[in-house]
Amino acid sequence: MNLSDIFASRIQGMKASEIRELLKLLDQPDIISFAGGIPDPALFPVQAFQDAMADALSNGNHAASLQYSTSEGYLPLREWIAGEMARLGVPCNAENILITSGSQQALDYLGKLFLSPGDTALVGWPTYLGALGAFNAYEPRFDRLQPGGNRSAQDYAQAAAPGRVKFAYLSVDFANPTGVTLTRPERENVLDMAAAMDCAVIEDAAYQSLRYDGAAIPPILALECARTGDINACRTIYCGSFSKTLSPGLRIGWVCAAKPVIDQLVLLKQAGDLHTPTLNQMAIAEVAMGDFEGHLERIRASYRARRDRMLAALEQHMPKGVEWTRPEGGMFVWLTLPKGMDGAKLLADALKSEKVAFVPGGAFFADGSGQNSLRLNFSSSSQQQIDVGIARLGRVLTGALRA
Amino acid sequence: MNLSDIFASRIQGMKASEIRELLKLLDQPDIISFAGGIPDPALFPVQAFQDAMADALSNGNHAASLQYSTSEGYLPLREWIAGEMARLGVPCNAENILITSGSQQALDYLGKLFLSPGDTALVGWPTYLGALGAFNAYEPRFDRLQPGGNRSAQDYAQAAAPGRVKFAYLSVDFANPTGVTLTRPERENVLDMAAAMDCAVIEDAAYQSLRYDGAAIPPILALECARTGDINACRTIYCGSFSKTLSPGLRIGWVCAAKPVIDQLVLLKQAGDLHTPTLNQMAIAEVAMGDFEGHLERIRASYRARRDRMLAALEQHMPKGVEWTRPEGGMFVWLTLPKGMDGAKLLADALKSEKVAFVPGGAFFADGSGQNSLRLNFSSSSQQQIDVGIARLGRVLTGALRA
Repeated sequence: MNLSDIFASRIQGMKASEIRELLKLLDQPDIISFAGGIPDPALFPVQAFQDAMADALSNGNHAASLQYSTSEGYLPLREWIAGEMARLGVPCNAENILITSGSQQALDYLGKLFLSPGDTALVGWPTYLGALGAFNAYEPRFDRLQPGGNRSAQDYAQAAAPGRVKFAYLSVDFANPTGVTLTRPERENVLDMAAAMDCAVIEDAAYQSLRYDGAAIPPILALECARTGDINACRTIYCGSFSKTLSPGLRIGWVCAAKPVIDQLVLLKQAGDLHTPTLNQMAIAEVAMGDFEGHLERIRASYRARRDRMLAALEQHMPKGVEWTRPEGGMFVWLTLPKGMDGAKLLADALKSEKVAFVPGGAFFADGSGQNSLRLNFSSSSQQQIDVGIARLGRVLTGALRA
Repeated sequence: MNLSDIFASRIQGMKASEIRELLKLLDQPDIISFAGGIPDPALFPVQAFQDAMADALSNGNHAASLQYSTSEGYLPLREWIAGEMARLGVPCNAENILITSGSQQALDYLGKLFLSPGDTALVGWPTYLGALGAFNAYEPRFDRLQPGGNRSAQDYAQAAAPGRVKFAYLSVDFANPTGVTLTRPERENVLDMAAAMDCAVIEDAAYQSLRYDGAAIPPILALECARTGDINACRTIYCGSFSKTLSPGLRIGWVCAAKPVIDQLVLLKQAGDLHTPTLNQMAIAEVAMGDFEGHLERIRASYRARRDRMLAALEQHMPKGVEWTRPEGGMFVWLTLPKGMDGAKLLADALKSEKVAFVPGGAFFADGSGQNSLRLNFSSSSQQQIDVGIARLGRVLTGALRA
C-alpha cells in the first residue's frame, strides 16, 4: 500500500522549500544566519500582548475569544484595518476586509480563487518563494512580470494560451527577496497592463510599514482607487500582514479588495479552516489600537541601523564583481554575483568553512534561473553579528572568485 | 471589470453554507437555536487558558510563542498527542502527527492532497457539511459510502470511472450530523473495502472524546494498526481536534497518519499558511498536559444531561411519524420526518411562528436529498431551553403534519 500513488496531480509540482530546510540551521548557535526572514523577537511588544491576551481571556470576553467566530474575521479588527487602508489612500470599510491566518494564507486562497490548471500567474523573476509555493498547488504556468518593461498585454496573453493570465503578483515595497521598491510609474504601468489583460493584481504589502527612509509611494490599490473612485470597482487585491510588525507567530494577515472578491474569499476561508483564531484577532486588535505607531518607530529605528550596518559591511568586505541592492526598508539585501557562480554551491562551502548562512537566489525564480544570486536578511541578526557574518561571507566569495 | 469572470472553475461548485447563514440567528436572544454545532462557552477551561497564555508569553517563552515556527507544529504538543493516540491503540510518535488549524483545515489539505477533478470521494449520506465544503474545492464526484452495505469495491470503482476512488471519509463516533456510531464490524468492513479499492480512509474523530455512555470502540486507525503492526503501513488518516473539548476559537487540530502522508501534508501546510499559531499550540499543550481528564469528565457530565433532556423532550413532544437517533455522545440528534416534509420550509415557519432554529437535513447530503430530515444540537442550549425549544419544535411539526 503506497498512498503516494493516488496523490492528486498537483502534488507533483510541490516540493520542500530550501528556506524551510535552512531554517533548521538557525538552532546551531555558532552559525551566523542571514537565511531567515524573521523579525527580531527582542522587538516583539510583549507587555502589550500580555495585557491584550489577559483582557481577551477575562470574564466577559472569554466566551467570545475561545469560541467559534465568523469566517470574515473579528469586526473591530476589520474596522481598524479599513481605517488604516483609508490612510493609505484606499477608502473602504469592513466589508472590504477579510482576516487571514497570515498573508501566506491569502496567497493560497487567491491561487485557489483564480487558478485553474494551465492558467498563467505573472510573477517577478525573482519573487517571494512562498508565493510560488502557494500558487504551485493550483498547477499554473508562470510568466515573467516586468513592471517597467515593454512586453505588451498581447504578448502575455499569447504566451498564456491556451490558458489565460489570471493575475500579476508583486510586492511593491522592499520586496522579498530583492529589497527593491517599485516606482510610481511602474505601479501605474502594472495597472495599465492588468486592465489591458483584464486580469487581477495581487499586491503583497507584507513589508509596507517597514520603510526606513525615502518617501512613501501609494499602494497600487490606492492608485487604482484614485482612477476608479470606488474600491468595489478595483481589480487590485491588497494583502497585508502583522507578521513583520507585531508578531508572526500569531498568524494574522488581511486581504483588502472589492466586496465581490472578499465575499468569495470568505467562502474559501470557511471551507478551508472556518476562521482565523478568535483570540489572536482580539489580541492583535487591542495591540494595534494601542501605541502601534510608537512601536513601529522603535522597530524601524532598530532595523534601519542593521540595514545601514549591513550595507556598510558589504562595502567593506565584498570582492569586486559582487553587486547588491540598497533597500529603503524591509528585511533583505539581494546580492548578484558574477555569472557562473552558484549560490547553492557557495552555501555548502559557507556553512562548512565560515559558518555563515544565506538563501541561494535560485529558489526565488520560477524558471530555476538566478543561480548567481543570494538573499541576505538583516532583521534577525545583531549589528555585531552582521559585521562578523558579512566579513565571513566576504571571505567565502573572495575565495570562490579566486578559485 | 468583473473579476468573477476569471475565477477558477472550482469556484462554481462552492456556495455559501446554510449553517453559516443560520449562525447569524444565534445573536437574536428570543430564538432558541439548536442550529449551531458549538460548545457551551461556560465549559471552557478559562483559568487554565489564562495561566497557559501567561506562561507562553512570559520571559523565556515569548521569543518562541510570538515567532514563526515549523510547519509540522509544536513538538511537545505533537509528542503529547502521539501518546494519546497510543492510548487509543495507535502506536506512533511525533513524526506521525501534524498540527492543523482545526480539523477543518485537515479536511481541506486532505482534499488538496488526494483529489484531482473528477476523482471520487466516498462520503456518508448524510455527512459533515464542512467536509463537503472542503472537498468541493477540488472538484470531486461524491459517491455514497455504506459502511455496512453490500456494494462491492468493484461497484464503487466502476461508478468512479474515468476518475477513481481516492478516499472514504467518515466520522465514526457520534457523527455530525446524525449522532450515529459505527460498529466495530462496520469499521472493519470499511478497511476491507478501502484495501480492495486501494484508497485512503479519512477518519474524522472530532467528537471522539465526548462519549456519554456505552463502551468505546477502537478508531479505524487502531484497527488497521492491529492488522499491519505499523502505522507507517496504514492507509487510514485520523483527524483529531481540540475544538469540542478545550476551545474551538484557538483552532487547534491534528492529523495522525503514516509518515509519508504527514511529510506531504507538511508541504501543503507550509504552502498554505506556514504554520498554526505558535502561541495557541503552546497554550493548548499546557492545558492538555494539565487536568485534561478531569475537564473531559466535567463537560461529558454536562452534555450527557442535556442529551438526556433532549431525548426525553423529544419523546414528550414529537408527533407520531417523526423518528430520531439516540446518540451515545457528541452534540447532535438527527430527526427523520415523514416523507414529503421539507426541513428547509419548516425552518422558515419555525423561526417565524415559534422562534426555534435547527439545520435542515438536506444540507448534509451530497446529492441534495434528505429534505425530510433535520439536525438538532444539544450542547449549546441549557436544559430549560431544550425543554422549551423542543416543545416549540413539537408544535411546528405537529402543525405541519396536520396541514
